[in-house]
Amino acid sequence: MKQETIERIRRFTEERDWGQFHTPANLAKSISIEANELLECFQWSDTDFDLSHVKEELADVLVYCRDLLDVLKLDEDEIVAEKMAKNEAKYPVEKAKGRADKYDRL
Amino acid sequence: MKQETIERIRRFTEERDWGQFHTPANLAKSISIEANELLECFQWSDTDFDLSHVKEELADVLVYCRDLLDVLKLDEDEIVAEKMAKNEAKYPVEKAKGRADKYDRL
Amino acid sequence: MKQETIERIRRFTEERDWGQFHTPANLAKSISIEANELLECFQWSDTDFDLSHVKEELADVLVYCRDLLDVLKLDEDEIVAEKMAKNEAKYPVEKAKGRADKYDRL
Amino acid sequence: MKQETIERIRRFTEERDWGQFHTPANLAKSISIEANELLECFQWSDTDFDLSHVKEELADVLVYCRDLLDVLKLDEDEIVAEKMAKNEAKYPVEKAKGRADKYDRL
Repeated sequence: MKQETIERIRRFTEERDWGQFHTPANLAKSISIEANELLECFQWSDTDFDLSHVKEELADVLVYCRDLLDVLKLDEDEIVAEKMAKNEAKYPVEKAKGRADKYDRL
Repeated sequence: MKQETIERIRRFTEERDWGQFHTPANLAKSISIEANELLECFQWSDTDFDLSHVKEELADVLVYCRDLLDVLKLDEDEIVAEKMAKNEAKYPVEKAKGRADKYDRL
Repeated sequence: MKQETIERIRRFTEERDWGQFHTPANLAKSISIEANELLECFQWSDTDFDLSHVKEELADVLVYCRDLLDVLKLDEDEIVAEKMAKNEAKYPVEKAKGRADKYDRL
Repeated sequence: MKQETIERIRRFTEERDWGQFHTPANLAKSISIEANELLECFQWSDTDFDLSHVKEELADVLVYCRDLLDVLKLDEDEIVAEKMAKNEAKYPVEKAKGRADKYDRL
């Protein structure tokens, strides 16, 4: 996310004095709620979805993720890199290739 | 997200030939599933949470969001900017300030 | 749910002194968390799922729903009947037949 | 749930010819979606919620759970009893009493 976008999200919250509602727990709930509005785009069909609706709901998820990163003072690239290192170890290419199984079933 | 992080996520999927599983619907399910693993960090307490666990689960949400952006060929900053414009209009500062109400109750 | 099953769920909570954690908000989180463990059974395939796993996760959702009914002193049949009356009005047979659209698109 | 309530839910689906949409995967998505509409009642506050809204959303979760039980020809009391037996073994009273920890941390 560009710094400009990040600033816009922060300003939105600050101008409305909404930081008081942005506890980590409330933001985790919010991410799940928006993730399910996104999921609703695919409720009855996997292929016949409204792209403009998907874009809006995915954006909502991303905004709340950004809020949570901010509140916990986390660096997005850092936490993703740490998790990717774990994923790479849990799913070795030679075992996981072409298989959708969970790591404990490989 | 830095280009380097984005590339790492893409390489992870490509090396495992997992693109075949990354339909928009499956990724939407995955975002919700990971969002709820994040929510689980706050299941019984809003304040007593394991930060390292939160970081991992938030990273998982962000990785699947990135996968969905890729699959749909979306630009993160563009869709967030479009949504923020809508949010700014739906929640005018003078009405929304300090209130957690939904826009249709302001 | 049979009275015997309801009593077993209540006894489980009481014996462990877990009523203190069963706030409506925590139970709502728990229902979502378990619903997503259920969803995980269908994460990468809609048709190739492990039925015994599905049964367990669906049971978990039902148990937390029962806990929430108890905490809020709600009658399951009453709230479902009230909602079904609304659904029947929102989705008239002649308009909704064979269509998966949301009521505001019929 | 009373037989009368179950029949009303079944009739609702049959009259609208919606059985075609009720795949197990679609119903699992639906349970998660409704669970998150329930969660939304507690998005910004754990204690200040609209009970009539909670009742409606909980009813929606219960209706889709009933649909999934039907589609998979499952007996609610049977699957809950099986899961409760597992829970009772995983959370022995003497270890779990008064503690919200997950079984692998007891």
